[in-house]
Amino acid sequence: MTLHADPLERLILELARLPGIGERSATRLAFYILKVSQKDATTRHSLAHDLARALTVAVEQIHLCAECRNLCGSERCSICSDTRRERTQLCVVEGVQDLRALEASGAYRGLYHVLHGALSPLDGVGPDDLKVDELVARVRAGGCSEVVLATNADVEGDATALYIARLLKPTGVRLTRLASGIPLGGELEYLDQATLGRALVNRREF
Amino acid sequence: MTLHADPLERLILELARLPGIGERSATRLAFYILKVSQKDATTRHSLAHDLARALTVAVEQIHLCAECRNLCGSERCSICSDTRRERTQLCVVEGVQDLRALEASGAYRGLYHVLHGALSPLDGVGPDDLKVDELVARVRAGGCSEVVLATNADVEGDATALYIARLLKPTGVRLTRLASGIPLGGELEYLDQATLGRALVNRREF
Repeated sequence: MTLHADPLERLILELARLPGIGERSATRLAFYILKVSQKDATTRHSLAHDLARALTVAVEQIHLCAECRNLCGSERCSICSDTRRERTQLCVVEGVQDLRALEASGAYRGLYHVLHGALSPLDGVGPDDLKVDELVARVRAGGCSEVVLATNADVEGDATALYIARLLKPTGVRLTRLASGIPLGGELEYLDQATLGRALVNRREF
Repeated sequence: MTLHADPLERLILELARLPGIGERSATRLAFYILKVSQKDATTRHSLAHDLARALTVAVEQIHLCAECRNLCGSERCSICSDTRRERTQLCVVEGVQDLRALEASGAYRGLYHVLHGALSPLDGVGPDDLKVDELVARVRAGGCSEVVLATNADVEGDATALYIARLLKPTGVRLTRLASGIPLGGELEYLDQATLGRALVNRREF
């Protein structure tokens, strides 16, 4: 059937393909899965079967939302289908993880646009590898009054935000960027110089 | 279909059932799996499909070896079927992980017997929960000259070894226990008192 005839070694091998899971962890996981699944093996209600099903369903059903390129199981994601969201605001993020982090903060009520990456010439990631054209098309289609550039506050994120800002400038839409500075609870003594420097440059009136 | 309708949340939930994997790690793993699997989703040769298949195959094909209770995909495990192994030696281990560790050491050429646990009255694990009867039956069947008690060097392991030794004493088989003492490369300064104490008690002639 497969590369490795022994089903135990095969399972360990596949688990070890996951990021951050070495052979030792994979072995531990495999034994755990077999241990808790053994008695339910025939009923097909074991952890192994549940996980196998979730993997298959996920990879076959999840695709990108036609509107914002978020991951979702239907044509449009739950955020784009939500009529209570502010539809004139568009928040541009690098990845779905960032979208989830912003959603968890509860501070944003508009729509999103997921780029699926950030510009990084050294890694060979150019504008064509990101969902930039789709973003420009959405903004050009109208109905959007503000684009919040919420890419990461690192070199790639800044470059991506700058690139998109230049592209969208002619549309006349309001362009904003997430504030960067000292995180809440942050102590000056332990902050890195770059953050401290930027917090000083971006200081606001008291 | 399942408890959670959203396939992404479902996958995260199932991954988080694995030991040592919290919701954060599960989310990271799910995104990774989807990312590397997306383009191969239709060919069914993605990480998600491979892992799903390995899980299903493992839990359906792997069972206990009829002889030594090692995990295996056929009736007898590869060790019990190996005619080059020393068949008069039986090494009793708590779990399959221990068997694998001993195999990796390359120092043992006999057969094994996996107990699948150790006596632990506090956790409600008694002799009936372990493969002890099967061990006694194997020894009584004859052909075995030595039983190496290789349970862990902790309270449960010692108690289990002692219990089995008493059971097997009447058969007249030679009973041995793995040596305990200072690990190779171990420095006295950093060793725990119990190990040091036992190494002193078990000191050998030079």
